[in-house]
Amino acid sequence: MGVQTGKQSLQFAEAPYIVSSASIVGKKEGEGPLGHCFDVVGEDDNFGQNTWEEAESTLQKEAFMMAIGKAKLNKEDVRYLFSGDLLGQDIATSFGLMDYQVPLFGLYGACSTCGEALSLGAMCVAGGFADYIVAMTSSHFASAEKQFRFPLEYANQRPLSATWTVTGSGAYVLGRRRSKARIPAVTTGKIVDYGIKDSMNMGAAMAPAAADTICSHFKDFGRNPADYDKIITGDLGTVGSEILLDLCCQQGFDISTIHEDCGVEIFDSKKQGTGAGGSGCGCSAVTLSAHYLKQVEDARLHRILFVPTGALLSTVSFNEGKTVPGIAHAVVIEHAD
Amino acid sequence: MGVQTGKQSLQFAEAPYIVSSASIVGKKEGEGPLGHCFDVVGEDDNFGQNTWEEAESTLQKEAFMMAIGKAKLNKEDVRYLFSGDLLGQDIATSFGLMDYQVPLFGLYGACSTCGEALSLGAMCVAGGFADYIVAMTSSHFASAEKQFRFPLEYANQRPLSATWTVTGSGAYVLGRRRSKARIPAVTTGKIVDYGIKDSMNMGAAMAPAAADTICSHFKDFGRNPADYDKIITGDLGTVGSEILLDLCCQQGFDISTIHEDCGVEIFDSKKQGTGAGGSGCGCSAVTLSAHYLKQVEDARLHRILFVPTGALLSTVSFNEGKTVPGIAHAVVIEHAD
Repeated sequence: MGVQTGKQSLQFAEAPYIVSSASIVGKKEGEGPLGHCFDVVGEDDNFGQNTWEEAESTLQKEAFMMAIGKAKLNKEDVRYLFSGDLLGQDIATSFGLMDYQVPLFGLYGACSTCGEALSLGAMCVAGGFADYIVAMTSSHFASAEKQFRFPLEYANQRPLSATWTVTGSGAYVLGRRRSKARIPAVTTGKIVDYGIKDSMNMGAAMAPAAADTICSHFKDFGRNPADYDKIITGDLGTVGSEILLDLCCQQGFDISTIHEDCGVEIFDSKKQGTGAGGSGCGCSAVTLSAHYLKQVEDARLHRILFVPTGALLSTVSFNEGKTVPGIAHAVVIEHAD
Repeated sequence: MGVQTGKQSLQFAEAPYIVSSASIVGKKEGEGPLGHCFDVVGEDDNFGQNTWEEAESTLQKEAFMMAIGKAKLNKEDVRYLFSGDLLGQDIATSFGLMDYQVPLFGLYGACSTCGEALSLGAMCVAGGFADYIVAMTSSHFASAEKQFRFPLEYANQRPLSATWTVTGSGAYVLGRRRSKARIPAVTTGKIVDYGIKDSMNMGAAMAPAAADTICSHFKDFGRNPADYDKIITGDLGTVGSEILLDLCCQQGFDISTIHEDCGVEIFDSKKQGTGAGGSGCGCSAVTLSAHYLKQVEDARLHRILFVPTGALLSTVSFNEGKTVPGIAHAVVIEHAD
């Protein structure tokens, strides 16, 4: 059960636990500052498959098996899957997870999907609807470029504001079984559109949504930045992060000392040529699992606000001159003894 | 709260109610056998917009307002939206619903989305996470043809097994407030792939998923077809419906006397030239609201199993020679006094 808190938040009566998690990434992510933290780093980004989409499906397949393996569960123990990806019609998810024969709720929240999946998964466990669920998502640099921008072979130039889609998948087992980290509360995002039309500047498109969700979260719970060790956005990158700090300040919340962004952390953008940072559903999913969650489990971090950010970009709407609206879903993650 | 029943079903301790619903359709649907049942029939399929995608967004916008109006609610009373559509990156949903500023869970379940949205919405209300939610979805013939097959201007021939994407949107307000119809149980589908590769025969691709979910439902609850007044699939059409009846019979369940399909009911396919019937997320969403739900509310039907069916088709995976896997989500709807 849960208590509806403020306008768009929930506090769970019994907080679901993050029983286990797993991350798998591509070669470039493995060469980045967090390279040593991931469970698996691929030798190349094909992952033994013939197409980029199959490669991305393989990421989901592997992340799922690792996560349930760490939790010492069989796939039959998983009541529901909450998963989605960036590709049209969620194909990385459907082809990746079909062999497991677990009831599936397919999601689309662009790069906010990890937050959406964790929120719905936590609600599902807290409502008594499942003993264990798996929340997961993926992205792949090459399948995303093909879907949203240009074929890799075209080798277009990229402005510095552009982000680099992370090749990776993160999976989380949520359940009632006690662990070192739990999800006591969530704040679900609304679509926010500031009229950005530049598909090469997704950080600017998503920052207003992140600010809206974060400030709503503070107001709903009567909290302020001091109540959190870190506030971690998904993939705003350097450009979007600056805008976020400004927008939060305008609403009276200075998060500058505790804000980090998975997109900024995952690459050394100057050395690796990744523009404003990493992006994609996989970016926040693998960074939470490999980097931040471990610190929560070890009590190096006591309470964090994890806020994956999504740009609701489509080539169809973009080519029709529409804006790129954003959405962000916030998940509170606390150390549990 | 809910009781996990069998392998993939839930029985709610307190069944959420369908407080209200609304349907809006295009001209062709208005000319079909159910034309007089819909709340609004458009005069043309542009709905006053410049693009097909904007037209589809307008359908969602209108359906939402009608549904909450019938429930005498303001948009601020709606805690969450559960919505998705057929288009890449759910653009009909994001552009259609952003003005309402309601926290959104974006879904992708292809044409099973209405079942997915009703299931998650029912879980949300039953878990105490919301007083009211809106579950909705849409499709549009022209935006779907452009997305999945050919531009309309190309005027390709269509085989008889092809279905016709319904232009329409259906919205449902679920809540704890008593009404004449409630959702006591749901059965969530798995991805089922029988290796169909024909994008012009989606009924055949989806029928195995529908059979799997329906038979699992019977087994999970120890029920049989006699426990239902009707079993209503989403958009199998004539070809898929035949396959469904065979597959259910093979598992020992004869549903032939109580099975109906929204895709078959919504058009007079011989007169209207709609091949094997209607399809698309909107097909089952508008047919349930306009046709079946009214019969449940009037106690002409006491208990139905509503099973929207989705073909997880993508042009990318299709062009790479992959199959079209299916998924189907079942929702029990009962008359309430």
